[in-house]
Amino acid sequence: MDERVREHAAVLVDWSARVETGDDVVVSVAEDAHELGVAVAEALGERGANVTTLYGSDELSRAYLKGVEARVSGEGDGCDENDDDAAVDAADFDSDPAVDRAIFEAADAYLRIGGGRNTTATADVDRPTRQAYAKARQGVREARMDTDWVSTVHPTRSLAQQAGMAYEEYQEFVYDAVLRDWEALADEMARMKEILDSGDEVRIVTERDDAPDTDVQMSIAGRTAVNSAASVAYDSHNLPSGEVFTAPYDTAGEVFFDVPMTIDATRVRNVRLVFEGGEVVDFAAEAGEDALADILDTDDGARRLGELGIGMNRGIDRFTDSILFDEKMGDTVHLAVGRAYDACLPEGESGNDSAVHVDMISDVSADSRMEVDDEVVQRDGTFRWEEGFEQ
Amino acid sequence: MDERVREHAAVLVDWSARVETGDDVVVSVAEDAHELGVAVAEALGERGANVTTLYGSDELSRAYLKGVEARVSGEGDGCDENDDDAAVDAADFDSDPAVDRAIFEAADAYLRIGGGRNTTATADVDRPTRQAYAKARQGVREARMDTDWVSTVHPTRSLAQQAGMAYEEYQEFVYDAVLRDWEALADEMARMKEILDSGDEVRIVTERDDAPDTDVQMSIAGRTAVNSAASVAYDSHNLPSGEVFTAPYDTAGEVFFDVPMTIDATRVRNVRLVFEGGEVVDFAAEAGEDALADILDTDDGARRLGELGIGMNRGIDRFTDSILFDEKMGDTVHLAVGRAYDACLPEGESGNDSAVHVDMISDVSADSRMEVDDEVVQRDGTFRWEEGFEQ
Repeated sequence: MDERVREHAAVLVDWSARVETGDDVVVSVAEDAHELGVAVAEALGERGANVTTLYGSDELSRAYLKGVEARVSGEGDGCDENDDDAAVDAADFDSDPAVDRAIFEAADAYLRIGGGRNTTATADVDRPTRQAYAKARQGVREARMDTDWVSTVHPTRSLAQQAGMAYEEYQEFVYDAVLRDWEALADEMARMKEILDSGDEVRIVTERDDAPDTDVQMSIAGRTAVNSAASVAYDSHNLPSGEVFTAPYDTAGEVFFDVPMTIDATRVRNVRLVFEGGEVVDFAAEAGEDALADILDTDDGARRLGELGIGMNRGIDRFTDSILFDEKMGDTVHLAVGRAYDACLPEGESGNDSAVHVDMISDVSADSRMEVDDEVVQRDGTFRWEEGFEQ
Repeated sequence: MDERVREHAAVLVDWSARVETGDDVVVSVAEDAHELGVAVAEALGERGANVTTLYGSDELSRAYLKGVEARVSGEGDGCDENDDDAAVDAADFDSDPAVDRAIFEAADAYLRIGGGRNTTATADVDRPTRQAYAKARQGVREARMDTDWVSTVHPTRSLAQQAGMAYEEYQEFVYDAVLRDWEALADEMARMKEILDSGDEVRIVTERDDAPDTDVQMSIAGRTAVNSAASVAYDSHNLPSGEVFTAPYDTAGEVFFDVPMTIDATRVRNVRLVFEGGEVVDFAAEAGEDALADILDTDDGARRLGELGIGMNRGIDRFTDSILFDEKMGDTVHLAVGRAYDACLPEGESGNDSAVHVDMISDVSADSRMEVDDEVVQRDGTFRWEEGFEQ
């Protein structure tokens, strides 16, 4: 076994999930993530934890949802002529599936190892079916998020292909991002967190010749930033991570997102959002505008921001069409419409609520600045505590 | 997808497990059983069941157990010089793992789909470690057996190799065994069950020139035979099945088992057992005698019979070194040392108890007879209700 796989497993188990003797750990292994699953199982045996392994196969999920579609449309056929009745809705699923609830209520930690064989494996499942399933599964999702959960990926050929990279090249990319000195990065990110925690107002400006301008401001008063250092000890649930994020509100202005992304298997490029009074009042995209519109129409909260994030992982040096990596890349900022994370909110206060959380990313490596309370804290990707920073 | 995979899934879900709308079904998918897992997931969606998918990987199990071995031997090193302390025992495992218990307590049905990449994937795990793990997991195993559980396999290259067959040849073998008219076979097996249920004494005799004789008798008075028709509706939990079995006692005589088998990754051939007063008092094997001795020494019950089974699935026409198939083959009988199944015992009575249950098989296609209460019911493989039967 490649030694980097064992190192990845050790970071996941020890740094990220902080597994201790006697913990009940649920590991979900994607179709082609077997090798990392093996390394994680060995590490958990060494730590004295219990392990339960789920099979996280997108192809199985697709098959199950196709089966549900067949059942519902079959029932429709027998009863009336209205085709609309054949659409799957949340009531066609059990909203309290006993086994899945039991798993996450009993688990101390949940390690999700992505890495399937086809990133578009569920492309032919009707969108309403997927949305209905997601809605019905909200209780399970909440139980899962009450565990010490961490999401990572094993580098697979399918993910390499999505990134437009050769397989070995992609492996190096993943391990550069994952196998970092997390303690040192956490210390650096603490500076950014301090700035955001003591600030009230953030403004982001980019002025580039080849793209629409961004000039957007938002309030962060009273909100707490998360130093997302890839560990549950930092309220951080992604490996790799390497971002500082908070939950903004009262957003106003225009933002241009130049980093391409995939929403619901649809390629979305060059998104422009216009905010007034905290809400998206206008939007456009050069590609995938319909998918974007569907997201924004999900519910009221889908038109408000749930997150402002600042990418600080310089082990990530390129975009790979995967939010797990893209949003953490150094010299980027991202905004997400939809759900805010509780960790950013004052105790007992609920932030923006939504069934969705969709991140969109801007490259800020050039012709850009971020201000907190009118003071520039990052210019052209360089933070104010770094060498070469120009006020 | 090969249509036979879908048919296999339909038999498993409908005939074997009797899944109904709203059932909570746990499916365990082995490393190379993905395709059947997909077909089962689709069938469960169609039936309106919930599905939770476990990854049943022998390589992950091995890695976990190797991790435990490393931990225990590491602890041993620090404390004293006695090497024996480094052996894993049941106390090194959690006997009440919360997640696994919760899964099987909440599940209505459990479908185990075997089919790994290497049938000897756990060969280098110390036997005491495996035994300790099995012992610690007894509670989980019991919870699992309280569900409507069914065990089957997807034909894989690894299983084809174990059977000494080409891959396509092995696929045909598996589907011939699995895709049967189970209702018709159940009706035929009901005749055998009736004979055993009303009988008190079974005697099996083989007299062949090329092998030691078998002449063994056992009591079955008061015991109930299981018509194992590959369905939980028949107290039958294997697909394929096709055997009638009961729980004998007071065994006396000698038995020769000419069908090779694998015990704990050890090849065992030509076993001879001598019984007196219900217990094995002498034994021999041409290969694997140590593995056989270990089994017989497990506990008191390991020297007594737990099962007499009569193979009646004529879709199985050869031995493939897999107990799932071998013991169901037409023209065979098998005896198991160890645990008896509750279904064969009078209500409230406990039969032979043991941590093991190891089946051994005899070919009875020639020079053999089985008598129940001194009446011949099978001669040279032909049952008394069949054409060509000679009294």
